[in-house]
Amino acid sequence: VNRALVELLRRKESELQQRGIAWRITGVATRKTGWLADAKGFDLNVLLGKSSALPGWANPLLRDDFCDWLSTARANVLLEAISLDPYTGQPAIEYLRAALNMGIHAITANKGPVVHAYRELSTLAAEKGKQFLFESTVMDGVPIFSLFRDHLHGVQVHGFRGILNSTTNVILSGMESGLTFDQALKRAQDVGVAETNPSHDIDGWDATMKVAALVTVVMNTPIRPDQVQREGIRGLNADQVFSAHAAGHPYRLVCRAHRSGEQAEASVRPEQVPANDPLAQVTGTSSVVYFETDIFPGLIITEVNPGVEATAYGMYADFVRAVGTGKAEV
Amino acid sequence: VNRALVELLRRKESELQQRGIAWRITGVATRKTGWLADAKGFDLNVLLGKSSALPGWANPLLRDDFCDWLSTARANVLLEAISLDPYTGQPAIEYLRAALNMGIHAITANKGPVVHAYRELSTLAAEKGKQFLFESTVMDGVPIFSLFRDHLHGVQVHGFRGILNSTTNVILSGMESGLTFDQALKRAQDVGVAETNPSHDIDGWDATMKVAALVTVVMNTPIRPDQVQREGIRGLNADQVFSAHAAGHPYRLVCRAHRSGEQAEASVRPEQVPANDPLAQVTGTSSVVYFETDIFPGLIITEVNPGVEATAYGMYADFVRAVGTGKAEV
Repeated sequence: VNRALVELLRRKESELQQRGIAWRITGVATRKTGWLADAKGFDLNVLLGKSSALPGWANPLLRDDFCDWLSTARANVLLEAISLDPYTGQPAIEYLRAALNMGIHAITANKGPVVHAYRELSTLAAEKGKQFLFESTVMDGVPIFSLFRDHLHGVQVHGFRGILNSTTNVILSGMESGLTFDQALKRAQDVGVAETNPSHDIDGWDATMKVAALVTVVMNTPIRPDQVQREGIRGLNADQVFSAHAAGHPYRLVCRAHRSGEQAEASVRPEQVPANDPLAQVTGTSSVVYFETDIFPGLIITEVNPGVEATAYGMYADFVRAVGTGKAEV
Repeated sequence: VNRALVELLRRKESELQQRGIAWRITGVATRKTGWLADAKGFDLNVLLGKSSALPGWANPLLRDDFCDWLSTARANVLLEAISLDPYTGQPAIEYLRAALNMGIHAITANKGPVVHAYRELSTLAAEKGKQFLFESTVMDGVPIFSLFRDHLHGVQVHGFRGILNSTTNVILSGMESGLTFDQALKRAQDVGVAETNPSHDIDGWDATMKVAALVTVVMNTPIRPDQVQREGIRGLNADQVFSAHAAGHPYRLVCRAHRSGEQAEASVRPEQVPANDPLAQVTGTSSVVYFETDIFPGLIITEVNPGVEATAYGMYADFVRAVGTGKAEV
């Protein structure tokens, strides 16, 4: 995703210029590289592995810790995409909090901080006059959160249902076409949709975190992941999935939430849906959310066959939202 | 719609207060009433016909013309919802232009001004530091235009297809259930979805204007309505529609547009769609647009069973967008 993001920033250079946005990458941190910073900016071809460092190109500095790294980089914006820890949202929350405290926009592709620290980080961002943005956490870069925040003023969301995890949907599509669970899982891994830990997907953790993020932000009702009833797709066998599809009531890993007084009730579990249900039409890497609201009885947003660029776009668009017009160091 | 808008403004009073928006209605103009203005604000119960004018309530002034009316009303925002003239967009364009020239936000529910004067009115609005907004023209209040303008930065729309006219969709749904064209039309009129002139719907004019508005704004490619290939549903007979539905390839009045070099090609015509196509699932007053873009191979927005409140919401949300925070006189 990070690589796709850099490619996208380069490809959309003219749009960014029109908005008066200039950017360079002044810090990179991965498990492999450690905390690298260079306030003058990295050579993108070196970064993308398309050429080796040229003689005379300053080597980036290796820093000891996060704050040291961020201030050496003189960053304006932090883009964070650490693997998900569904239980605590750490260490991402700590990094995002530190960045905001340093007056740096905090953008995350990580559901943990949204679920575990949405109010805290939003409040902190507002105090600092900076942005805490997380559009790529649900449905890749489709601007769900931005839509509700900026353009559905006063619309009350009563609830929603949807399909939000690609890996399980790709596996179910494979099983519908006659594959076993293991064959279908392998195919999902081959097309690169599986997350770092495949059990996060198969056991419904990824979908649960997305549901919790939507409930927390869009329904404005905090919910902990352990309050979401969660059941993955391990219990389904190939025959069952194949026959249900053939009979016109296919299985989907359905995410649901609805308001119940001051609280919200939410679940993630395999359900059979009727053939003419919008959820039945969504196969493979596609995803869908069907919102029920006071103004719109049904508002459905469907993303069809996204590639890695769609996820990168979520971070790209958050970056543009955060910096608006101006010079940005990432 | 105007009545639903006033009801909505009242119902969302607390959300508006939170945003620091206070409002009153200081001008009303219809064919029946003429140009009524009262800068102190109308009594909403009288306006909605829920009570007669109280003794001591100042009578509104009847003015001679548009500019006189608007300045007497001391309006900050103009909300315009005149019947559509697809050929010229008049007199709506003239009113919106005059309002912007007077430093008044111009909001329209009318497709004519978007199709015939989008660039002129947008440019004028920008010069005056005011807004020209038209979210309720396509898919009621679903924020399609706002989404692309504010949250799909740099996304190139290659084309789209969709179902954008409720009346013809309600008629086709009726014919699928066994009604004749005339019976189905009558049912559409009974549920109040028909526009002022039903031929605007049946002959594809309404859908054509929506296609032209989307192409002009979202694809950033001006197109005249007479450049859209247009065929209505009069040519379909009941047996044909009934059998096609039964055979799993139902008829829909399909709107299409795609980029072709610097130009756009667009059409509105009855087409048979496969049963598993997102367009086939959309019946009755529901509507759908399937966008094809460089970043998202498919992004589908579906509105299910909207009521009159959804259309009113488009104008309500434009009003909130325009005034942001502050006092507004409509």
